[in-house]
Amino acid sequence: MKLASLKNGKDGRLVVVSRDLQSAVAVPAIASTMLDAVERWDECATRLSEVYLQLNAGKAIGAFAFDPLQAAAPLPRAPQWCDGSAFLNHARLMETAFKLPPIPDLETIPLMYQGASDDLLGAHDDVPLPDEADGIDFEGEFGVIVDAVPMGCTAAAARVHVILLLQINDVSLRSMGPREMKTGFGFLHAKPSSAFAPVAVTPDELGDAWCDSRVQLDLQIAWNGVWFGNPNGAEMSFGFDQLVAHACKTRRLSAGTVIGSGTVSNADRTRGSACIAERRAIEMIERGVPTTSFMKYGDRIRMEALLDGASVFGAIDQGIVPANINKE
Amino acid sequence: MKLASLKNGKDGRLVVVSRDLQSAVAVPAIASTMLDAVERWDECATRLSEVYLQLNAGKAIGAFAFDPLQAAAPLPRAPQWCDGSAFLNHARLMETAFKLPPIPDLETIPLMYQGASDDLLGAHDDVPLPDEADGIDFEGEFGVIVDAVPMGCTAAAARVHVILLLQINDVSLRSMGPREMKTGFGFLHAKPSSAFAPVAVTPDELGDAWCDSRVQLDLQIAWNGVWFGNPNGAEMSFGFDQLVAHACKTRRLSAGTVIGSGTVSNADRTRGSACIAERRAIEMIERGVPTTSFMKYGDRIRMEALLDGASVFGAIDQGIVPANINKE
Repeated sequence: MKLASLKNGKDGRLVVVSRDLQSAVAVPAIASTMLDAVERWDECATRLSEVYLQLNAGKAIGAFAFDPLQAAAPLPRAPQWCDGSAFLNHARLMETAFKLPPIPDLETIPLMYQGASDDLLGAHDDVPLPDEADGIDFEGEFGVIVDAVPMGCTAAAARVHVILLLQINDVSLRSMGPREMKTGFGFLHAKPSSAFAPVAVTPDELGDAWCDSRVQLDLQIAWNGVWFGNPNGAEMSFGFDQLVAHACKTRRLSAGTVIGSGTVSNADRTRGSACIAERRAIEMIERGVPTTSFMKYGDRIRMEALLDGASVFGAIDQGIVPANINKE
Repeated sequence: MKLASLKNGKDGRLVVVSRDLQSAVAVPAIASTMLDAVERWDECATRLSEVYLQLNAGKAIGAFAFDPLQAAAPLPRAPQWCDGSAFLNHARLMETAFKLPPIPDLETIPLMYQGASDDLLGAHDDVPLPDEADGIDFEGEFGVIVDAVPMGCTAAAARVHVILLLQINDVSLRSMGPREMKTGFGFLHAKPSSAFAPVAVTPDELGDAWCDSRVQLDLQIAWNGVWFGNPNGAEMSFGFDQLVAHACKTRRLSAGTVIGSGTVSNADRTRGSACIAERRAIEMIERGVPTTSFMKYGDRIRMEALLDGASVFGAIDQGIVPANINKE
């Protein structure tokens, strides 16, 4: 099943989207927003999947053409956003290139930061940022939405709580990250609003590509229309089950909590990267200096994952623009 | 004006509370939840303050006795929770006692971490935690709720966005903090759900004690009924105006965003402390070893701020209990 939120108020308007992303239908009799559906998932999921079957068969009453430009983030205002950094290949490249002090327990405890979740961007929304000099970067990720998860849920028990899969651009400001990391308080300025592909999908949509709690798809990254990478999600060092268990260790998670994988990264360097910071790290390791600059205003980033040649989540395709700052 | 959210669903039921905290009245014709009121503040504030005047005069129709045991957090599900550490006296004590590496730009850039905001606790709610050995601590703080703040808002311009003041217990797990700080990703396990005093108050309620964007009141802290500290909020090294400006540097803030001061801390050690970690730091500095243990299950913490002998926000008075963890 595929679901999207069309732009409408703070929480969007829930629609079921056809597998081929061509058509959609609103389902106000089942749930008016995705957050509402996620909070009542046991009650809504079967009814939503019946509509999905009708829609794919061309028999849904009230169906209309799905316009991804009108899609908000699946949960524009999520209860919580916790982003992992579960591809250790990426963490090790950064450590090596920037001679960072070793991160404690890197191999055994997932890295995860708390992000802001109240203002998440749609797939085609411009990304407004305050300064071109801030080291503007994208991070191509996969993610999950969970239903309500009790405190202390184990990784094994967490699997049934993963109800929807996502594709994410975790917008990052690299000039701010190192200072914020050194404070020990973590990222704040370095992590403005993240953006999300138009549709959230149930794990069954991926068939065998949802395996071991990983989205085992290539994530195609193009920056200003030029290939930048196509790393595969299979190499996550911690699965989403482990990330959910990590997130809920000292808190319960509200239904609609979003957990991210961190930037997708593969050991095979011919796969490219899903963020500029990683390419720069590889450049430093291989040639001594980084040669790729960060993004400029007007740049565009496109991210998409295909299954049997068809787009799974729809594409993220968005531009970087100057924020409208009132300098008082 | 004083406002509270009585326990009711995810967002509570908005009530106006009398200045003496004795009576309350629901205001469904104005706004049904505090989040709704905060999102439409320009439209609601005057009407709410008219009800407040009637309530204080004993003339509000439908008034009933206010029971702080029934109060949820003012915003049980806030859009965002960013907690500062704006009392540098505290940061310096921790640095000295634990021989921490100096935090960059400590004097000029506020420390702030992103917290979870989807499951905030009421003033008398038990605090469920997974393990007594985690170094359970309280942090007595003040905080603010803002209306919508644009990205890049200056400290001077931020002042008008502070619409309500809060009193907070930022529950902390000290055995987890240092490791999470070393990862650079910041606090996650170390910061379970925070708790909030029953009422949120408009700044005018404080008279001269709201000055220079600081809550200049003593915060009375008692642990299991024994005095622990009464530090005053005046010594914030950064005002809430500066904290709001810091929070919105690379993002806009949704109406209802909560910004915390960090644990209140005074240079005068006879004032005591608002968290155990700080008392332990002072013990290490003065005697070489910390002698005060962290909290145990069954312990209670009480925090209250008085103005002319009367409680401003109502008291936080809550117990620490074992979380119900299903060990699968």
